[in-house]
Amino acid sequence: MKSIAASPNNSLGYDQLRAVAWEDGHLKLIDQRRLPGSLEFLAIESAAAAAQAIRDMVVRGAPAIGITAAYAVVLAARTRYQDDSKNWTKRIQPDLNVLAAARPTAVNLHWAIARMRKIIESGIAGDPTAPLLFEAQALHDEDIAANKCMGALGAALIENNCGVLTHCNTGALATGGYGTALGVVRAGMARGCISHVYAGETRPWLQGARLTTWELAQEGIPVTLITDSAAAHLMQTGKVGWVIVGADRIAANGDVANKIGTYALALSARHHGLKFMVVAPTSTVDLATATGAEIVIEDRSEDEVLSFNGQRHTPPSVRAWNPAFDVTPAALIHALVTEKGVIEGPTHAKLSALMRS
Amino acid sequence: MKSIAASPNNSLGYDQLRAVAWEDGHLKLIDQRRLPGSLEFLAIESAAAAAQAIRDMVVRGAPAIGITAAYAVVLAARTRYQDDSKNWTKRIQPDLNVLAAARPTAVNLHWAIARMRKIIESGIAGDPTAPLLFEAQALHDEDIAANKCMGALGAALIENNCGVLTHCNTGALATGGYGTALGVVRAGMARGCISHVYAGETRPWLQGARLTTWELAQEGIPVTLITDSAAAHLMQTGKVGWVIVGADRIAANGDVANKIGTYALALSARHHGLKFMVVAPTSTVDLATATGAEIVIEDRSEDEVLSFNGQRHTPPSVRAWNPAFDVTPAALIHALVTEKGVIEGPTHAKLSALMRS
Repeated sequence: MKSIAASPNNSLGYDQLRAVAWEDGHLKLIDQRRLPGSLEFLAIESAAAAAQAIRDMVVRGAPAIGITAAYAVVLAARTRYQDDSKNWTKRIQPDLNVLAAARPTAVNLHWAIARMRKIIESGIAGDPTAPLLFEAQALHDEDIAANKCMGALGAALIENNCGVLTHCNTGALATGGYGTALGVVRAGMARGCISHVYAGETRPWLQGARLTTWELAQEGIPVTLITDSAAAHLMQTGKVGWVIVGADRIAANGDVANKIGTYALALSARHHGLKFMVVAPTSTVDLATATGAEIVIEDRSEDEVLSFNGQRHTPPSVRAWNPAFDVTPAALIHALVTEKGVIEGPTHAKLSALMRS
Repeated sequence: MKSIAASPNNSLGYDQLRAVAWEDGHLKLIDQRRLPGSLEFLAIESAAAAAQAIRDMVVRGAPAIGITAAYAVVLAARTRYQDDSKNWTKRIQPDLNVLAAARPTAVNLHWAIARMRKIIESGIAGDPTAPLLFEAQALHDEDIAANKCMGALGAALIENNCGVLTHCNTGALATGGYGTALGVVRAGMARGCISHVYAGETRPWLQGARLTTWELAQEGIPVTLITDSAAAHLMQTGKVGWVIVGADRIAANGDVANKIGTYALALSARHHGLKFMVVAPTSTVDLATATGAEIVIEDRSEDEVLSFNGQRHTPPSVRAWNPAFDVTPAALIHALVTEKGVIEGPTHAKLSALMRS
């Protein structure tokens, strides 16, 4: 990875905001660890560097991770083909494995690699860079289009003058562009049906505090930040009608793995009679996983909880447990919004039918 | 306020750990803003300085705030009597008002001031310092005794080999000594019925991360820190049987105001069939407040959410909402543990009967 000169950090609309991009023959990532303090980019030259960037949260968000992996396969193929034009499809296998293992919970990573693998195995004659890049860019473009579609579908569900609460970052930074749950927020704000946005700060990594507020501030969308544990109290005040979140993996029965804290929001929303919306492209649906209980939840480093900005605020002997995701049962979800349509009250049957459509 | 030389920071048992103390004719507070990095003390010389210390969270925790106010009344009376021995009982009134206004939610502050006011109005002949100090020390000693009693009563409710989750800091640092909810944890650990303690970090002020882990580490009690929003996921794993918290004010119907995030824990505990225990001395009960809806919830500075250790991690234009407490309805509480006894399933009738006993 090498650092690229930063762009000026003012008023980037979602059309300019690309967490992942292919530029001048390399993969370029916004270094999301540095936001909102500074907008810096990293140039990624290999699959190993891309996997490292995914592990280290340079790039995060299930769709953005998938797109990063797709471009990383292009980098890997280019190198493997240059090294050994006859055996490159064999020699690229470790690269695919390294990418697939970068993070365990989001399924989009595996989905994107599977799409790229299909092209690899299609018997490309000559240099595979162009056809693989074509596929990666298609996948990226489709994600943006899916987001815009989901934005419209989700916003249509929201009554007028409604306050909403979102969690983590599911915007342009977490996707190909525009966003999933934050895409619905963007569309709802543009339509005027959403009156106010509350963002949970999303400990420990503070995606909500650092990234969601930054994205919305770029577009002048007013947002009020709360601690994650203030959400139930906020719901009690009647200031929000919908909770809108993304997803990292959706099991066949509609259970949703998403950023830690999502499950507590769903429980509180149910208690207060509020609606709960999950917004995710169908690339997030994993029909091979029967229920949420089977989803592997990534435990991340305890340092993310014990320290802040590299400064430890807890006694040296103390340990932490840092699960990065939790599972929200389908029964707590009112609307699952995908680019193929909306499912109200997701079930195995409804989800299977949607995926066949 | 002036700083006093710090004591060595190693292995302070709860018997040595005094957040609030009267020493050499002044009030001495542990500066809890500095923990766990360093153990520093502040000498408080006036009611105004005590009120400032309470507002700024040098000292926090409902019982500790009450005890601080009681000692601050001694400081005020000494000064007012020295200045004007005839009219000191009149001239001390603004001091009492300043103390009472320091923080709005915890009722112990008002309760402690009311107890001191009774002595002031009892017609003391001569210098009031000694009789007021006697009352303040009695109130302090009673709090420690109440904590130890509640520790035993609460621990008796816990089945063997049980994991527990606690929130905020309710230990020696939050009380006269020993602790309320953390007193139950101490007693349960000593008895062997509690097998493991999980502590929520308690954003934004991180009382759980900074203070509870520090207190437990002093005594070698193992504790696992989690983000507040991981609590529902923890409950889903079956690793905890009880959630144990303190209280800042208990309304006549048993509704409990406590640190923000408590309500969400109660909702999650109910969903998972876990038990929810509130531990607080009867000085926390406010029969003049009918229900939790009447309790004034303090909104604290948004900087506590927008910044960390004085360093801003959010964009300049972003606003935050920072309610310091929330209200947990009585219906979600299995056991209310006081020094006068345990109420299972608190109601107005049961609470009134307890207070009359």
